[in-house]
Amino acid sequence: MLRRTLVAMLTLTSTLLAFPALAAEQAKATPTAKEILAKSAPAEWRTPDPQNLIYMQLPQGRVVIELAPDFTPLHAANIRTLVRGHYFDGLAIIRVQDNFVTQWGDPNDDETGDKSKIRSLGKARKTLPPEYTRSIAPKLPWTALPDGDVYAPEVGFSEGFPAARDPASGQEWLTHCYGAVGVARDVDPQSGSGSSLYAVIGQAPRRLDRNLAVAGRVLEGMSLLSGLPRGAEPMGFYTKPAQRIAIESVRLAADVPPKNRPALEVLRTDSPTFAALIDAKRHGRNAFYALPAGKVDLCSIDVPVREREPAAAKH
Amino acid sequence: MLRRTLVAMLTLTSTLLAFPALAAEQAKATPTAKEILAKSAPAEWRTPDPQNLIYMQLPQGRVVIELAPDFTPLHAANIRTLVRGHYFDGLAIIRVQDNFVTQWGDPNDDETGDKSKIRSLGKARKTLPPEYTRSIAPKLPWTALPDGDVYAPEVGFSEGFPAARDPASGQEWLTHCYGAVGVARDVDPQSGSGSSLYAVIGQAPRRLDRNLAVAGRVLEGMSLLSGLPRGAEPMGFYTKPAQRIAIESVRLAADVPPKNRPALEVLRTDSPTFAALIDAKRHGRNAFYALPAGKVDLCSIDVPVREREPAAAKH
Repeated sequence: MLRRTLVAMLTLTSTLLAFPALAAEQAKATPTAKEILAKSAPAEWRTPDPQNLIYMQLPQGRVVIELAPDFTPLHAANIRTLVRGHYFDGLAIIRVQDNFVTQWGDPNDDETGDKSKIRSLGKARKTLPPEYTRSIAPKLPWTALPDGDVYAPEVGFSEGFPAARDPASGQEWLTHCYGAVGVARDVDPQSGSGSSLYAVIGQAPRRLDRNLAVAGRVLEGMSLLSGLPRGAEPMGFYTKPAQRIAIESVRLAADVPPKNRPALEVLRTDSPTFAALIDAKRHGRNAFYALPAGKVDLCSIDVPVREREPAAAKH
Repeated sequence: MLRRTLVAMLTLTSTLLAFPALAAEQAKATPTAKEILAKSAPAEWRTPDPQNLIYMQLPQGRVVIELAPDFTPLHAANIRTLVRGHYFDGLAIIRVQDNFVTQWGDPNDDETGDKSKIRSLGKARKTLPPEYTRSIAPKLPWTALPDGDVYAPEVGFSEGFPAARDPASGQEWLTHCYGAVGVARDVDPQSGSGSSLYAVIGQAPRRLDRNLAVAGRVLEGMSLLSGLPRGAEPMGFYTKPAQRIAIESVRLAADVPPKNRPALEVLRTDSPTFAALIDAKRHGRNAFYALPAGKVDLCSIDVPVREREPAAAKH
């Protein structure tokens, strides 16, 4: 009976087969996410550019991050340079603030620590101009979400990322949804570089939008960042250095032999299957969720990621 | 320099004192949450009724939950009965699903497990009618949030809880914001009892609103539920029983000697200070967050909880 006492029922259809009395309800149920995804076409999935994929190896496993160079090009380039210089190897997760962010970088972010290390990496830059927003022109792909938003005039998806835009200002930006990876900085807007990054692990802190640069999002391994003990110091800093989580290595996928890369694919956010998934979130109903929500919030929509079968990946 | 490389700066003002060049910016800064709270009046805080406060003792610490009997009276009464029968003692956290919920209860939720145990507790009920919504009349206190909402016609706060209402149907309900405690159930809407509960640990799953009963919210110890390893099974169930987190005991505050109760106070959601905090979220700006959000989402608003000095509590 365990599987039936559930809050959510991603596997509802199969579970329901044991309940003949509910067959009528089941007949009225809308397709599940799993069923919708099972019918997706291969062309609806994209393989992220290995130049934009970062592998962060933690003791517990690997986190995969996709950079968003069309939104934050200077940061993407600098993060690549830092990664290629093995800047992050041996650094740590220094801060986990509940319902907010997990942040990593050099615990000694001063002249004795990261600043001198960055300086030694040739082309790497210690600070960058803020890339909080970009001009809507030149145009990027845009899939509008018509459900409305508390914070922005328009929201939707661009190149796989949840985003917002303001036609009045002509600007668009990536939003701080769960899993977004942002650029930590000092008070000075010009003080970020990508040498310290954070991932959103709670309710979307949309107040950060346009005040910090979003450099990408976590594709895989999110729970390795969200399921960590929270730090006891203000803002979630760990009290003792020993509590920090070591970063074993960070590598660019392009620098890893293809056979050692996970064959990740991301559902295109301009695909019919993605639209069907959003509609299932909005209007889906089944025996468990009898009342459809009617609308869906931008940050409540997952962009599906899958790993191709290893056999296929090794061709 | 560590404290200055931050994503958020709750303590921004004091931090900024080290930056004379930013004094002008600081002068324009709006009050911080800390500053607003420091000016609150004692009467703006309430002490939750000990009949509505639940202490859940985990190996890592204590979780305090406030029940919401005006929204889910049958569940509040049944949870009290279960707690007083020590029903939860020795049960466990059985499921942690990333960006969704942490759920606890009896791993054996069948006739050999919880059902027979509940039956042995006299007045405790195994199932209850769903209490997903309540009629707006009789009227409860309501503090409207005018910023809009993707899911509901109206949102706001009632008796300390984030809530939504629909004048057309005459119904109101507690929303699934971070920290909300809901009633797990089987497919049958009449199958919940409060013997298995969940807490929201990610982006507010508002789709659950009106499909599940919200029985209260976590006042203290939220990070003990959110900072747990995610279960590897579908829906976050732990693979091995040994991975579950044991519940040492669950007690009603009213049954605990006053000297052993934490002196928790919750800011009244109909108080001027709470309104000022919301406005600071909406329009606040400082040297770090130069661009105010302009609006604030219901589930991005924390209802402050504080613990009075132990000396005062021991009078």
